[in-house]
Amino acid sequence: MVEGLKIDPDRFLKTFDLFSSIGWDSEKGMQRLSLDENDVRARRLLVEMLGSLGASIKYDEAGNIIAEIGEGRDTIAIGSHLDAVPGGGKYDGALGVVAGLEVLRIVRESGIRLKHKLALIDFTNEEGSRWTPSLMGSGLSTGVYDPGYIYSRKDRDGVSFGEALERSGFKGERTNNLANNPPKYYLELHIEQGPELDTEGIKIGIPMGIVAITVWEASFKGESNHAGTTPMSVRRDALAGFAKFAIGVREHALKNQGLIRITIGKINIHPGVHNVVPGFASFTVEARSPDPKAIERAEKLLKIIGETIAEEEGLEFEIKRSFTLDRTYFNEEVVSTIETVCRDLGLSYKRMWSWAGHDAQNMARISKTGMIFVPSVGGKSHSKDEYTKDEDLVNGLKVLLGTVIRLDRM
Amino acid sequence: MVEGLKIDPDRFLKTFDLFSSIGWDSEKGMQRLSLDENDVRARRLLVEMLGSLGASIKYDEAGNIIAEIGEGRDTIAIGSHLDAVPGGGKYDGALGVVAGLEVLRIVRESGIRLKHKLALIDFTNEEGSRWTPSLMGSGLSTGVYDPGYIYSRKDRDGVSFGEALERSGFKGERTNNLANNPPKYYLELHIEQGPELDTEGIKIGIPMGIVAITVWEASFKGESNHAGTTPMSVRRDALAGFAKFAIGVREHALKNQGLIRITIGKINIHPGVHNVVPGFASFTVEARSPDPKAIERAEKLLKIIGETIAEEEGLEFEIKRSFTLDRTYFNEEVVSTIETVCRDLGLSYKRMWSWAGHDAQNMARISKTGMIFVPSVGGKSHSKDEYTKDEDLVNGLKVLLGTVIRLDRM
Repeated sequence: MVEGLKIDPDRFLKTFDLFSSIGWDSEKGMQRLSLDENDVRARRLLVEMLGSLGASIKYDEAGNIIAEIGEGRDTIAIGSHLDAVPGGGKYDGALGVVAGLEVLRIVRESGIRLKHKLALIDFTNEEGSRWTPSLMGSGLSTGVYDPGYIYSRKDRDGVSFGEALERSGFKGERTNNLANNPPKYYLELHIEQGPELDTEGIKIGIPMGIVAITVWEASFKGESNHAGTTPMSVRRDALAGFAKFAIGVREHALKNQGLIRITIGKINIHPGVHNVVPGFASFTVEARSPDPKAIERAEKLLKIIGETIAEEEGLEFEIKRSFTLDRTYFNEEVVSTIETVCRDLGLSYKRMWSWAGHDAQNMARISKTGMIFVPSVGGKSHSKDEYTKDEDLVNGLKVLLGTVIRLDRM
Repeated sequence: MVEGLKIDPDRFLKTFDLFSSIGWDSEKGMQRLSLDENDVRARRLLVEMLGSLGASIKYDEAGNIIAEIGEGRDTIAIGSHLDAVPGGGKYDGALGVVAGLEVLRIVRESGIRLKHKLALIDFTNEEGSRWTPSLMGSGLSTGVYDPGYIYSRKDRDGVSFGEALERSGFKGERTNNLANNPPKYYLELHIEQGPELDTEGIKIGIPMGIVAITVWEASFKGESNHAGTTPMSVRRDALAGFAKFAIGVREHALKNQGLIRITIGKINIHPGVHNVVPGFASFTVEARSPDPKAIERAEKLLKIIGETIAEEEGLEFEIKRSFTLDRTYFNEEVVSTIETVCRDLGLSYKRMWSWAGHDAQNMARISKTGMIFVPSVGGKSHSKDEYTKDEDLVNGLKVLLGTVIRLDRM
């Protein structure tokens, strides 16, 4: 019960299960890449359900589904995404969409007249698993990206985003882009994806923003040589240089783990055969921090570590930034409203940082934005073992609904 | 001048240059994979030159070219290979074939009557770069491998060895296989491929045999997790485990480098994207040693290092042997004959081990076998920068010819 509005946990959880079933494989996890057969089925179901609520539905240039109910000059928008990483879980993205749908239903059924229009947005290709970059739908709709660039992005099978969008039936007009009709507020409910809330037994996380991210492409160049005839001491082994680098970098991140997270997620070596000393190793380094200065210091450290190893091992070290995303701050009015709602509902909460990217960071450019996190058991995410308890799903819905109502009355 | 036989260094080096030119690209190094267009051209040139010497030429089941001159109950065979690794050098393999051809020419032109037949063998696919396994031609011809297995091996384009051999025109009869007509002696002149002779200023290396080789497939299994939301301390990062392993293993090999050489030449990680903590890393470990006990000790050490890291890092470690090749001893009579020849020629020499595999190790099963090494400048090998001085090529030819004559008279 939120200020006279009745929540039906059963209906909400059943709707969530219905969406979860589309593309779910208990062995392989979720099979619902952006605009694939399952994603299109889930989107059609969403449109059908929104239609039966009497919502007005439009698509924008990115194929984002934008449904509105009610009247008013300004809009409170709720958004998230139905696409999943390959083999991912049921909760990431879908929770936010289904909870938003439920909020629209509850408001519609209650007969309460809000001062704002209420919108639900399903963003296209948030994950970036089928086409890079991630946050594609929100990025195009808020004017971060140019449509020419986005439409020409190709998936692994060579299918461009433009082609797939056209075929899906969800291609809409540029005039519907969110940059042309910015909601006043934007809210996104999401699983935390990390272990903090679960470990600390806190019910609701309220992100102050999204951490800054920098990705570097780095490499060690040595000399490919015969694994038999080349004595150990004269080798210029690029993979050995990499191993020393990985350990040095990790040591720094472990010592400073409240402040920075550093990941080496990709490595390729050349020639990559068992009987040749690797002459080349290229890899990515990704750093995330709520403090951009921590990333700058990390960058200097990466260079020092790499150059020192290069000197020791007779290698050449190169590093360059390939991607940078500034820290995003969420709107203080929205953040403190969510806090108030949690207090009113008697739910424990804490301010925190989102260490993952979300469409909310693009929406923060055009709307007063905030997010609501619910606990992920064991912090598992992008995995079929991703799990959030029903009770926490319902708590998320309650906070989302409560925040909509509070913002409407401000 | 070897015991009345006249060497013509110019002719020898010109012939060597002629073979070197087939497939040579000054940017990309040698382009002469087994039975490709260039290898077939080089083989045809060899057959033509051998034919004009009046040699009798046959092909065996593996497409090895076997040319014989002279008469006698027993045969002294000289062999090597014309195929090269992709982007390799001019010397590896080709030196032995061209020097062997030159020995046949010199003997033929001298009119000297040897007690043995003299044979030259060009082995097919020694390198194993187009089809695995390496030493394929000698392996099939000496009975190590079954033709069914070898013929069905496929290259990267799906072309089987059987098809390519048929098409090349070099497919011969099983009755010509060396196992059915074992030469009494087998000699192979090769570049060292390592830096020992060059560094020590020694002219000729005389391998006592070929080191034992073991290859393991190993892996660390952790958990793939979100690079943002997963705090450093709870990660189960398979690549971090690998890095610690690589350093531990290398430390052991560096401390014991006269005894063992250990190489990690191949690694694959999963999922291998910049924003996911790698949950799986699989890699090869290869160890070579003249002492099989050193390899057994290394195997135990690999297990201890891997299991210790797995325990520390919350990973699972697996390792299993994927390939084992016993140490090969060369024939003492041949080895000491080569020593005598070096002394007679006034060339500095040393006994050593071959850390690389050669067709000689298959031939050692059926013939009294020995090898002759000449210095590789800087120890470079399997590289377009592979280089051996003309003077050393000619020294190699002299020792080869001298050894043939000495063995013939024993």
